[in-house]
Amino acid sequence: MTLIVQKYGGSSLANAERIRNVAQRIAKTRAQGNRIVAVCSAMGDTTDELMELANQVSSRPEGREMDALLATGEVVSCALVSLALNALPCPAVSLTGQQAGIRAGGFHGKGLIASIEPDRVLHELAADRVVIVAGFQGVSEGMDVMTLGRGGSDVTAVALAAALKADRCEIYTDVQGIYTADPRVVPEARKLDEIDYEEMLELAAHGAKMQPRSIELAEIYNVPILVASSFEDTPGTLIHREVSMEVRERVRGVTYDLNVAKISVLGVPDRPGIAATIFEPLAAGGVSVDTIVQNASVDRLTDLSFTVARTDLRHALEVVRPVAEQIHARGVNHNDKLGNVSIVGTGMQFAPGYAARMFRVLAEANINIEMITTSEIRITCIVNQEQVHEAVRVLHRAFRLDVGASS
Amino acid sequence: MTLIVQKYGGSSLANAERIRNVAQRIAKTRAQGNRIVAVCSAMGDTTDELMELANQVSSRPEGREMDALLATGEVVSCALVSLALNALPCPAVSLTGQQAGIRAGGFHGKGLIASIEPDRVLHELAADRVVIVAGFQGVSEGMDVMTLGRGGSDVTAVALAAALKADRCEIYTDVQGIYTADPRVVPEARKLDEIDYEEMLELAAHGAKMQPRSIELAEIYNVPILVASSFEDTPGTLIHREVSMEVRERVRGVTYDLNVAKISVLGVPDRPGIAATIFEPLAAGGVSVDTIVQNASVDRLTDLSFTVARTDLRHALEVVRPVAEQIHARGVNHNDKLGNVSIVGTGMQFAPGYAARMFRVLAEANINIEMITTSEIRITCIVNQEQVHEAVRVLHRAFRLDVGASS
Repeated sequence: MTLIVQKYGGSSLANAERIRNVAQRIAKTRAQGNRIVAVCSAMGDTTDELMELANQVSSRPEGREMDALLATGEVVSCALVSLALNALPCPAVSLTGQQAGIRAGGFHGKGLIASIEPDRVLHELAADRVVIVAGFQGVSEGMDVMTLGRGGSDVTAVALAAALKADRCEIYTDVQGIYTADPRVVPEARKLDEIDYEEMLELAAHGAKMQPRSIELAEIYNVPILVASSFEDTPGTLIHREVSMEVRERVRGVTYDLNVAKISVLGVPDRPGIAATIFEPLAAGGVSVDTIVQNASVDRLTDLSFTVARTDLRHALEVVRPVAEQIHARGVNHNDKLGNVSIVGTGMQFAPGYAARMFRVLAEANINIEMITTSEIRITCIVNQEQVHEAVRVLHRAFRLDVGASS
Repeated sequence: MTLIVQKYGGSSLANAERIRNVAQRIAKTRAQGNRIVAVCSAMGDTTDELMELANQVSSRPEGREMDALLATGEVVSCALVSLALNALPCPAVSLTGQQAGIRAGGFHGKGLIASIEPDRVLHELAADRVVIVAGFQGVSEGMDVMTLGRGGSDVTAVALAAALKADRCEIYTDVQGIYTADPRVVPEARKLDEIDYEEMLELAAHGAKMQPRSIELAEIYNVPILVASSFEDTPGTLIHREVSMEVRERVRGVTYDLNVAKISVLGVPDRPGIAATIFEPLAAGGVSVDTIVQNASVDRLTDLSFTVARTDLRHALEVVRPVAEQIHARGVNHNDKLGNVSIVGTGMQFAPGYAARMFRVLAEANINIEMITTSEIRITCIVNQEQVHEAVRVLHRAFRLDVGASS
């Protein structure tokens, strides 16, 4: 019998009617002869509402109590989905993260799954019940609730699929799958039928809705993920290891991010260890640095530029300015009106010329490139924020993603 | 150091402001050199809202899932109280029923505390933290959440006080204590400074806000309970074993219940076992029978009357009618417009004449008595529902409860 782990996001569970719809979908899949474990997020805005309450009683809410508070949202939605299933009738049982054997380490608010002891889940499956598991949470060694941070419910689903050796993991959400580009920006964007883990990782890291951590986990344990709509009966996108030869195009998608700021440290003495002097304090301060560019050295002085999330800019400047003084740099400036645009595709690494073509397409659209960064399967350009959407559109067209064939 | 278990009800925790007030009160008591365990109910109407959601997804919600659902309400309020305390700052930690070691048996929705293993609570107290415990819940042998039914948070508080050998249990609520009568009916009703367990049991069973089960538990473990207002700094009512001689009056309070219906089975053959034939099916059907009166037998036929909660009347009639036919009774009739009024006081059992005086007071007010039932420290009359409030008022006056001295 096929074992499927499904995951339903908060918008799919926002009210009683949607919860009944999710129950119908689960019951239908079970009636087709499958065993089901369904991971649920909190209903709609529950998590935000709980956070708002916490902020009303505390100006600096600590992690342990926030975790205890927020994890209730998923317990509520799971109990309701289980009630809706049993009413159909379809035998079901809801489990908290702890009851499902999900052990978590790390820090409160951003826990990491350490292991899963799925005895209770297996026992309930053997009793022919659908098992509904609260996403986004595990239990610490000290038996306290740990929430798993952003994308925590997706991670729960993928980790359970791996631990249970499930045949696949299905992520149900409010979109129909993974697109060649954001359909709000590019109306002719096309839903992909399949994509491989590496490509999905690049898309996830640069704007698509899933968090990279669940894709990485799925790749390590070779769990195929189907991303599909919980509202419509459409096929979705399958994320897996081997994408069929026939459908492989070299550029698979265009992504973007509007939340980019650049910091430049000017006139830095060009000597060994100077980069570490700048970037170590940033890492210690929890600032994630993305693209780094160092100019050619003139008179043993160089300019060092890097990007951070705009939301981290103020904090990053507080860290960098004293360091710049200390190393006698000429100054620090910044630009908080940037964004990035990326083309992603596994095929690119075996075929030259994609970067040059991307730069020409942007130049023809009068879009100036501030910085460039590449991985094996991605080329990213930092551009002015106001030109990001236009850049996505011209690249989507140039690489013929609307018709499903890049040349 | 004094160890106090406090309990805060839902209306005391209905919003962020009230939660901050509760935190202030706890911190103040701690600052006076006490160790505190505080049991919290769910905020305001949370439980009703969760029930409403459950009813929207299921027409017959089963116990296990309802318990998982409803128990989240207390976890939320406990985390918020703990956050508010830590923000003061006052070191605090919130625990679920399971984390507090509360083991429960019985049935879902009406669990009974089997035992408490308070290791974690003691550990947190030793670390000088205020311990906030989710009321109304424990964990079953199978590690499922069990809710403790009506008055479940009070029971949690009293049971924890017993297990921790606390010096006292303080129940904070939206009233100032236990009154000689319902102040909405008798404006001159007086708050009692103290009352003994037996008297409180009778008051609780006949209209006062606390459930008898927590009083019984407190009596068995000799836990003194202070019932007081969470909104005002007034002394409240102390429920304990020995009430001081000086303040002991013979009648301590007048209670009433408007939710009473009477069923009469007419012309019942007066032979051994006939009462069991009628009452066993009622017990099996979950109908709680209160007062029972059997008339003197005429021609070996008798009339058997008993009262049930009006909310149980329809169900009780469905059970009784076929039984009445089966035993060839002459018929079944009922009256759903009744109520009861009781006088309560430990002193009564040593002094005759209270019953006669109660009947005379009611007669002088033209209130007809339908049925009478007594315990050692209580006399209850069943009267017409519309005369119940008047009966409470004339009895309160006749026994001089307004001035604190009965003759």
